Amino acid sequence: MTERLKGVLAPVVTPFTQDLAPDAKRFVRHCKWLLGHGCSGLAVFGTNSEANSLSAEERMMLLEELVQAGVPAEKLMPGTGCCALTDSVRLTAHAVKLGCAGVLMLPPFYYKGVPDEGLFRNFAEVIERVADERLQLYLYHIPPVAQVPITLGLIERLLARYPRIVAGIKDSSGDWNNTQAVLDAFVGKSGGKQGFDVFAGSEVFLLRNMRAGGVGCITAGANVNPHGIDRAYRGWETPEAEKLQASIDAVRKVLQSQVSMIPALKATIAHYAGDAGWSAVRPPLVELTADQQSAMVKALQALGFEMPGIR
Amino acid sequence: MTERLKGVLAPVVTPFTQDLAPDAKRFVRHCKWLLGHGCSGLAVFGTNSEANSLSAEERMMLLEELVQAGVPAEKLMPGTGCCALTDSVRLTAHAVKLGCAGVLMLPPFYYKGVPDEGLFRNFAEVIERVADERLQLYLYHIPPVAQVPITLGLIERLLARYPRIVAGIKDSSGDWNNTQAVLDAFVGKSGGKQGFDVFAGSEVFLLRNMRAGGVGCITAGANVNPHGIDRAYRGWETPEAEKLQASIDAVRKVLQSQVSMIPALKATIAHYAGDAGWSAVRPPLVELTADQQSAMVKALQALGFEMPGIR
Repeated sequence: MTERLKGVLAPVVTPFTQDLAPDAKRFVRHCKWLLGHGCSGLAVFGTNSEANSLSAEERMMLLEELVQAGVPAEKLMPGTGCCALTDSVRLTAHAVKLGCAGVLMLPPFYYKGVPDEGLFRNFAEVIERVADERLQLYLYHIPPVAQVPITLGLIERLLARYPRIVAGIKDSSGDWNNTQAVLDAFVGKSGGKQGFDVFAGSEVFLLRNMRAGGVGCITAGANVNPHGIDRAYRGWETPEAEKLQASIDAVRKVLQSQVSMIPALKATIAHYAGDAGWSAVRPPLVELTADQQSAMVKALQALGFEMPGIR
Repeated sequence: MTERLKGVLAPVVTPFTQDLAPDAKRFVRHCKWLLGHGCSGLAVFGTNSEANSLSAEERMMLLEELVQAGVPAEKLMPGTGCCALTDSVRLTAHAVKLGCAGVLMLPPFYYKGVPDEGLFRNFAEVIERVADERLQLYLYHIPPVAQVPITLGLIERLLARYPRIVAGIKDSSGDWNNTQAVLDAFVGKSGGKQGFDVFAGSEVFLLRNMRAGGVGCITAGANVNPHGIDRAYRGWETPEAEKLQASIDAVRKVLQSQVSMIPALKATIAHYAGDAGWSAVRPPLVELTADQQSAMVKALQALGFEMPGIR
């Protein structure tokens, strides 16, 4: 078993070529920049990666390109949870086979109001079919988007049944009370040797999460501000902690001020990398207008924000 | 161009073998029973088909099995709308190539609150990439599940740009006011030669839809009550119309009384076909308990409900 990932992980945005094909070259380059500038791991194929706008084949191709390009698999936590059980199994087995540190798994999200029993069966089927003790499964709770929650009761059942496989959670509920409840319920109480790792789903909860026993954050903002968020992570026990947190909050606020976070991240990279091609998004998303982009960049510059080494 | 489908279409439930693989044999048999007992067409791979719990490969395999088994492609309107643009293109091109009458297309449904511009681009990209004038595209509006609506403004833009491709809609909003608004806005006003066809998403709206200019319904209930719903469809202009409608409403009410419609449909088929294997559902759904099944069957029998020829 490789060491568990902790710290700051980016759900890496996925670049597209002009004809909306996944752009492996820009992707590899961005992943390497992230690992060199504060990210301890990469949660590729998350919500902010437009992963659900990619086919299973496209995800596997990109993951293979990353590993072949020298990005260490033990730094990777790809998203592998799909609506279709068979897709989730296929992507998870593929990630484990490549040696990935873990997988971040959405619940099947098309059918709404499904019982926890059905969600338990989904995760259990994936685990049983992948049948590989190297699998480290992180649950992905993001009810504002998936609309299908990972409840405390579900976590409890999964941990009881698969204590060495179920490794943690990314809580993107946006609700600190939920994160606190998960920390209270499961940190230090899991049956696994290494415990249950709670990642905040946004850097705005980083300090609170660390103080309450969490292990870091997996956050959109890490795509552009990995250095800032990593400083806040490393400094969480220092007298500077609150100040570092305030500084990353300010950047996040600008990114979030746009109609949509994903195009905002891509427009930020496009600007700082001097590479307009980065702005492309797949439908149903729409890129920022030139006016939106320049207003956002202006606001970031007012904060003294930079992306060192991105060019 | 084949003739447009009208009347009663079933979103055919997908049977699974004991290990949860799609069961082509039972599927073909049920499709043939449906076409022989009132269905004028089959909207395979709809919401009630657990289509979103199937991989793209599994859907294509089942569609090919159907056609090879002699189910006429001109009776088929497979669901082909996925979260990933590339999956939607692949499935749509495959369906057109097989000669299907049309496709029923969900919007990409993972990302919420996306702009109509992004949804327009999604459908436009699919149409442009499939690039086949035989394509008849039916929009699938089901906001209670997909959470991403097909607005009147989006329909208008799509019809204006692709008048010969965009053929109609299935309205599963459960909101008659929306169906009425779509009928008012587009029936008889489309640029296409054959007009814009509105299917109600439930048989409970069948009579109202026919009286207001619609062409039929695509409904879960048609999986078990195709004969009843077809009688109501054919009789909509007769003095019996209200009575026929009331009769299909009563059956629907029993099916809907269960916690989940899909397991209820499968349990009904399992009972009347004498084939317990039909009850299997894929996670995240859960089959009915034996008690739930027998209570439902009792309620159906009290209505004199039967499934002639299903054994």
